[in-house]
Amino acid sequence: MTFTVTVRDHMMIAHSLAGESFGPAQQLHGATFVVDASFAATDLDADGVVVDIGRVTAALAEITGSLTYRNLDEDPRFAGRNTTTEVLCKVIADRLAEQVTSGALAPGQQFQSITVTLHESHIAWASYTRAP
Amino acid sequence: MTFTVTVRDHMMIAHSLAGESFGPAQQLHGATFVVDASFAATDLDADGVVVDIGRVTAALAEITGSLTYRNLDEDPRFAGRNTTTEVLCKVIADRLAEQVTSGALAPGQQFQSITVTLHESHIAWASYTRAP
Amino acid sequence: MTFTVTVRDHMMIAHSLAGESFGPAQQLHGATFVVDASFAATDLDADGVVVDIGRVTAALAEITGSLTYRNLDEDPRFAGRNTTTEVLCKVIADRLAEQVTSGALAPGQQFQSITVTLHESHIAWASYTRAP
Amino acid sequence: MTFTVTVRDHMMIAHSLAGESFGPAQQLHGATFVVDASFAATDLDADGVVVDIGRVTAALAEITGSLTYRNLDEDPRFAGRNTTTEVLCKVIADRLAEQVTSGALAPGQQFQSITVTLHESHIAWASYTRAP
Amino acid sequence: MTFTVTVRDHMMIAHSLAGESFGPAQQLHGATFVVDASFAATDLDADGVVVDIGRVTAALAEITGSLTYRNLDEDPRFAGRNTTTEVLCKVIADRLAEQVTSGALAPGQQFQSITVTLHESHIAWASYTRAP
Amino acid sequence: MTFTVTVRDHMMIAHSLAGESFGPAQQLHGATFVVDASFAATDLDADGVVVDIGRVTAALAEITGSLTYRNLDEDPRFAGRNTTTEVLCKVIADRLAEQVTSGALAPGQQFQSITVTLHESHIAWASYTRAP
Repeated sequence: MTFTVTVRDHMMIAHSLAGESFGPAQQLHGATFVVDASFAATDLDADGVVVDIGRVTAALAEITGSLTYRNLDEDPRFAGRNTTTEVLCKVIADRLAEQVTSGALAPGQQFQSITVTLHESHIAWASYTRAP
Repeated sequence: MTFTVTVRDHMMIAHSLAGESFGPAQQLHGATFVVDASFAATDLDADGVVVDIGRVTAALAEITGSLTYRNLDEDPRFAGRNTTTEVLCKVIADRLAEQVTSGALAPGQQFQSITVTLHESHIAWASYTRAP
Repeated sequence: MTFTVTVRDHMMIAHSLAGESFGPAQQLHGATFVVDASFAATDLDADGVVVDIGRVTAALAEITGSLTYRNLDEDPRFAGRNTTTEVLCKVIADRLAEQVTSGALAPGQQFQSITVTLHESHIAWASYTRAP
Repeated sequence: MTFTVTVRDHMMIAHSLAGESFGPAQQLHGATFVVDASFAATDLDADGVVVDIGRVTAALAEITGSLTYRNLDEDPRFAGRNTTTEVLCKVIADRLAEQVTSGALAPGQQFQSITVTLHESHIAWASYTRAP
Repeated sequence: MTFTVTVRDHMMIAHSLAGESFGPAQQLHGATFVVDASFAATDLDADGVVVDIGRVTAALAEITGSLTYRNLDEDPRFAGRNTTTEVLCKVIADRLAEQVTSGALAPGQQFQSITVTLHESHIAWASYTRAP
Repeated sequence: MTFTVTVRDHMMIAHSLAGESFGPAQQLHGATFVVDASFAATDLDADGVVVDIGRVTAALAEITGSLTYRNLDEDPRFAGRNTTTEVLCKVIADRLAEQVTSGALAPGQQFQSITVTLHESHIAWASYTRAP
């Protein structure tokens, strides 16, 4: 028995990817990532929701806002790391999990998992699921 | 090893949500819910399907038909309860499960789970997964 | 030769529709309208855009914000009128046109037309196109 | 902790389905299947990906290329079997798994599962998930 | 000043296409066509709609119902003609126009045009627009 | 009376936009553009199509291939110009028109117009329509 709630946002970044297998994506290019953040829980809270959708939307917007309109190659947070779609899923999921742990996001709610999906185009996407 | 089959329908309802965290959604407003009902099973039946898609479509349409074009605030089935997206997912999944249990939907098939997802907009959706 | 730019928002309203042809939609129900506002122009401005996308997004959000989370049956702006999908397209397009006329939205730009599309479900939508 | 990556392709086939429950689909008809192939893994490789997206895209295209623009009723690979959406999900997932096992697709990567989803229309889809 | 209303349905057909430029599509294969039927008018009727959405949905369903689950190569209505996506758009639009002309669909309404769009996959679609 | 056919592709680019109104988009960032190229004609050719979909797909892929995985700020083709979504629509439409004029794309076919739409996210897109 699992409930989930998911909200969508997006971000538009430049980056390059190191590694021969990336072919032309080794060059500086960019992506729009349509970002879906999903929270799973066994039970609903007293209001009948997994988590307040307004708070989740704001939390996700703060995270995408710290990434969007940037060249991730020059962002010290990603020094020495490829900012692949998969890696960025984990970055966003980890930050959401921090807000859960700190009680900022949904005090009192016990989540089963957090999933973040990034759509890089109409034909490719990635996701990362973790414990909260 | 899991097979799933999913069918989509929709319903258009009015409601209000009690609780300060809902902000303006405490007012009477409404929603189109695009409803996805998903059935999971380990094995296919003799015809090579999880469940007859015509029967599932009809079963889902009967349930959405009992909810659509209504003000859920005045529906005795929901007295004293918030009809959040999550709650409505459970309502629909539970009714589908009843039809499975009664043998009306897919006699002989053993399902692993039933999942119902309600899309309330292009940027928010919820789901509920349960045993059949 | 025509350029267009389109932005998307949404609103969630309750209403009923008067007239036998509406069948069960004569009852109080609701809808999520996914709203696309589109501006057409022959030429781009000095920045290379039809209209500043930030301003258009804000203008549309202000309009949808004045409609969402409401029961339109009790809104004096719609007294005696059906708030069909088509009518609401016109309401939103007319307000956008007012902002163009007043110079609030895109001073100096000559638009060919404004189109507003409202998606009421995954299987039905309506639009309204007018001169600016 | 699970990462996934998914790529999309499509195929356009003719077939008929044996069994009274299929109704008019017992006649020769056809379908466009939009095909999503998804790979799940606990860890990313040294490049920061679940699997090289170029290789996965090519592997999927080879499989859909062997099925598309055909009448599956006359394909000896499916003699005596219904080519339902569910069955075709399994056929494609099994072929992807063979490429994983042979080391052709992602040598060194340990997958948790492979999921193939086929969308037969805007209102119906099926999937199959298996160990790699 | 133009209002439009659009409804969506689908059909699943087998066919082959004669002509070298079609390459492998010269073989018997199939397609799911997601069908959008759109009606444009300058004015709304007394109820505030372009056309009764229930009637349009029923009219479209009758037409797609006469085409779906068939092998169009054996349909005498298409003898000697390629049933390309474009041709099928015209077939459906022409039948909708007949219903307008006969007064069956929207007696009293003056349409500007009828447009039918067929999506043959997530990456290709066609449309046909005609006077009513 | 107009037929259209549309094909979809995508490209992933880095760029920055000069002009105060762009706000944070003045920084180097990026975008996935999902690209729809549409051709309109009054009549179908002898095969029953607006234009050979294989040729159009190849023509579009060649153009997106010359733009994708690049930093457009360093591309001499765009020196001194903002590569806004609108501008890129025109660039792609103009190149498609050149191929029509040269007879490379659809010798003998008379097009009414070419439209190119670029989707920069799930909530914003632009288009450009021109004579062929």
